[in-house]
Amino acid sequence: MLHVTEEPSAEADVIVVGAGLAGLTATRELKDAGWTVKTLEARERVGGRLKGLDLGNGKAVDLGGEYFGDKSTMIAETAKSVGITGFRSYDEGERLTFVNGRRHAYSGLFPWRMGPAAIADLGQAILKIERLAKQVPPDGPWNAPNAEKLDSQTLWSWMQRNVTTATARAFITMMIEAAFCTRPSDVSLMHVLYYANASGGFRYLLEVSGGIQRYRFDGGAHSIPKRLAAKLPDEVRTGAPVRRIEQRSDSVVVSGPGFEYRGRWVVVAIPVTLAGRIDYAPALPGYRDQFTQRLPAGSAMKCLAVYDEPFWRADGLSGQITSSDGPFRVAFDTSPADGSPGVMSAFVTGSAARKLTRLTPAERRTAVLDGLVAGLGPKAGKPREFVEQNWLDEEFTRGCYHGWGPPGLYTAFGPALREPIGRIHWAGTESGVHQMGSMGGAVDSGRRVARELFARAAEERGEESKPDTTITEAVGRGR
Amino acid sequence: MLHVTEEPSAEADVIVVGAGLAGLTATRELKDAGWTVKTLEARERVGGRLKGLDLGNGKAVDLGGEYFGDKSTMIAETAKSVGITGFRSYDEGERLTFVNGRRHAYSGLFPWRMGPAAIADLGQAILKIERLAKQVPPDGPWNAPNAEKLDSQTLWSWMQRNVTTATARAFITMMIEAAFCTRPSDVSLMHVLYYANASGGFRYLLEVSGGIQRYRFDGGAHSIPKRLAAKLPDEVRTGAPVRRIEQRSDSVVVSGPGFEYRGRWVVVAIPVTLAGRIDYAPALPGYRDQFTQRLPAGSAMKCLAVYDEPFWRADGLSGQITSSDGPFRVAFDTSPADGSPGVMSAFVTGSAARKLTRLTPAERRTAVLDGLVAGLGPKAGKPREFVEQNWLDEEFTRGCYHGWGPPGLYTAFGPALREPIGRIHWAGTESGVHQMGSMGGAVDSGRRVARELFARAAEERGEESKPDTTITEAVGRGR
Repeated sequence: MLHVTEEPSAEADVIVVGAGLAGLTATRELKDAGWTVKTLEARERVGGRLKGLDLGNGKAVDLGGEYFGDKSTMIAETAKSVGITGFRSYDEGERLTFVNGRRHAYSGLFPWRMGPAAIADLGQAILKIERLAKQVPPDGPWNAPNAEKLDSQTLWSWMQRNVTTATARAFITMMIEAAFCTRPSDVSLMHVLYYANASGGFRYLLEVSGGIQRYRFDGGAHSIPKRLAAKLPDEVRTGAPVRRIEQRSDSVVVSGPGFEYRGRWVVVAIPVTLAGRIDYAPALPGYRDQFTQRLPAGSAMKCLAVYDEPFWRADGLSGQITSSDGPFRVAFDTSPADGSPGVMSAFVTGSAARKLTRLTPAERRTAVLDGLVAGLGPKAGKPREFVEQNWLDEEFTRGCYHGWGPPGLYTAFGPALREPIGRIHWAGTESGVHQMGSMGGAVDSGRRVARELFARAAEERGEESKPDTTITEAVGRGR
Repeated sequence: MLHVTEEPSAEADVIVVGAGLAGLTATRELKDAGWTVKTLEARERVGGRLKGLDLGNGKAVDLGGEYFGDKSTMIAETAKSVGITGFRSYDEGERLTFVNGRRHAYSGLFPWRMGPAAIADLGQAILKIERLAKQVPPDGPWNAPNAEKLDSQTLWSWMQRNVTTATARAFITMMIEAAFCTRPSDVSLMHVLYYANASGGFRYLLEVSGGIQRYRFDGGAHSIPKRLAAKLPDEVRTGAPVRRIEQRSDSVVVSGPGFEYRGRWVVVAIPVTLAGRIDYAPALPGYRDQFTQRLPAGSAMKCLAVYDEPFWRADGLSGQITSSDGPFRVAFDTSPADGSPGVMSAFVTGSAARKLTRLTPAERRTAVLDGLVAGLGPKAGKPREFVEQNWLDEEFTRGCYHGWGPPGLYTAFGPALREPIGRIHWAGTESGVHQMGSMGGAVDSGRRVARELFARAAEERGEESKPDTTITEAVGRGR
């Protein structure tokens, strides 16, 4: 893996923009098929929305993407292929939730002590969402039977009609902000259903042991792209923010400050909103450009507090805290597998992120630690280390966990998500099918673009290309 | 006015990015106060969303912004200051509307023959919108009393509850697509109210003689920026797409391919979505960046058919055609003041634009002419010239008429609309108050940034700066 200044120009069959999971997966697939590839990464590190925090003593935790579940087959496969396995998330003891100012300790999925009316309301709402979600195909949500209706309203509007108690509304809002990093008032009902279905179900999305938070990766999820990149030393080039993509009749020229790479095709494997900022020549057609104007990234920061030990476990607490109006929407015990040191990760998402990003780092630290103290007691206020990862501020990410559709996006512009433009192919988790928006979606999209390019090459050679059945396979496996 | 290659570097007090109405207004205001200014325009022409079509014989019509009304005081003032006056839009004869496949000829605002139930429904809905709009302050819609509620739903959701007949729904959808270039399902209820109030009222927005379509400019609206620029030969530089803005402790460096300008401050006066694509160093704070991810431009094309004469007038037709499901949402007689030649302008907006932009220019021409024939008869199918202006495809605009807020934007990120970031100030019609989103908003924003800079300079000199009262003035004048 070289810095781009060591190789300011090169030629390859394919130039890949971005060395996150999507770009690295595409790179590996293409290389394995004997193609030449050069992968340009803006940062000095690979991994995109997967990023590590070194704890010393050979231990590390995640400042970005972290969890996976039994249905997360693609990322588990990828991890295994580079020798990384998972371990169970810590999920013992009582959970805490702060809803509309009240603290509830509970076990199981729901805080039953919120009251029977709220719980019944919550239960029926989750069931309804679950049922609706099954109607939205992850490979083309715009093809859902009621697409126009599902995409014409916000989740907030749906909740106005389908959730009656204030407590259940607050609880769902909190869960949505934790899972989608945006408010029910911003996001299309269709997007919520689409994402839930692509992930393996709405309830699956919310659960820890029974859901997508069941496992974490030994050494951290960020070590997956690191190991992938380590096997691609001739391909990956860091410090290379791509600013311009020029398409010629038989080639592409991909360039940025001080570098210029040439290929037959280019794969753009960065978040949609960032893909929209590259200077394309010729300019992108309006349909794709307007699509990129409309798929923003979620608002998320992750704040890690490191303690000598996970003291809350001895107090009978799981470390899982949700909060409808505090400085974070959810916090988890993310200590290494052996429980040493103790690490709490607070997810400052949605409205909380939009508020806290306007404060100073010191003010944010105080706010987040106050929130942890409210749940875990005064010891939580004195971590030996506090690290914040503000994904909104990260120039080469600009939001987490994933991009989402405001009302109307998918029905008006959906096909732009994956349709190649000339010699440009699009990857990135937002264009994935299996677990779109998470690590699995990134892997899926990387595999897909490789297949697209194999088919193009076959076509150029005059061969009949096989139909692309893998999207269906992916959906089948994802559910 | 030089091409930037003739002056590849320069210094000035202020560098202005964009020579549309906003940038040119700021330039003039600053220059008049004795400041030095350099204004960098990406294109070879000035005017941004105002663009002309030369008809020969010294006549020209508009391919972009065109109309104004009695409340459009700021653009009228600006036009007058460069010797341009208005004339009455052609508004005689019958109007036509195609709603849900049925053709109605009518006079007055509403096609009464749509039936009494639909008309009553339409009337009450417009009244309700009008009343709600008054609650949304154009200088800060997020400060409206029911801001959260108004911004948490699409206009579609509001219509589900407040408009009962299919015909009225189709009619309103058509009017929204014509006025906002997006569907009721995409746009925040708040945005519709905000824009309506900033414009002078919802009904005012829809009317011709009694509304914002009352007048057109002699020689075309596009001649206003042309004349403004002609008076700024030392300031305006064309062919200069700004790619990077670097802020230093006491200066800014604004650069693009082959040029580098230096100033004390910079005014970015381009559409919000394009402002988000510049490479800022240091990177913009997440709050502003995420704002730019969420304010897309409308979808609009304008197609002009030129005939020897406006033959429809002799047939007793006004040339005004609206259509709920045809290739355009509205068409107007936009012949020059003396009625020669005859010009029809078809506004392909919202869902129509998203559909037609995926066709070839030849297919679009056929579709639009077919629509005109359905209204005006077979003669409409044989124009002597047909010109399409696809604003989605324009690299340095990327949508018309203006940027709009999806649900949640203004309540979560609204203040980012105008808050300066270090030495960067923001202009452009989307940040205007008086008639935000139209020509008036551009002028207003240009004046505002000039005042912001005067206040900063006064502060630097140790003077107490006067409070900025002009926003209130503008709102007062706008209504």
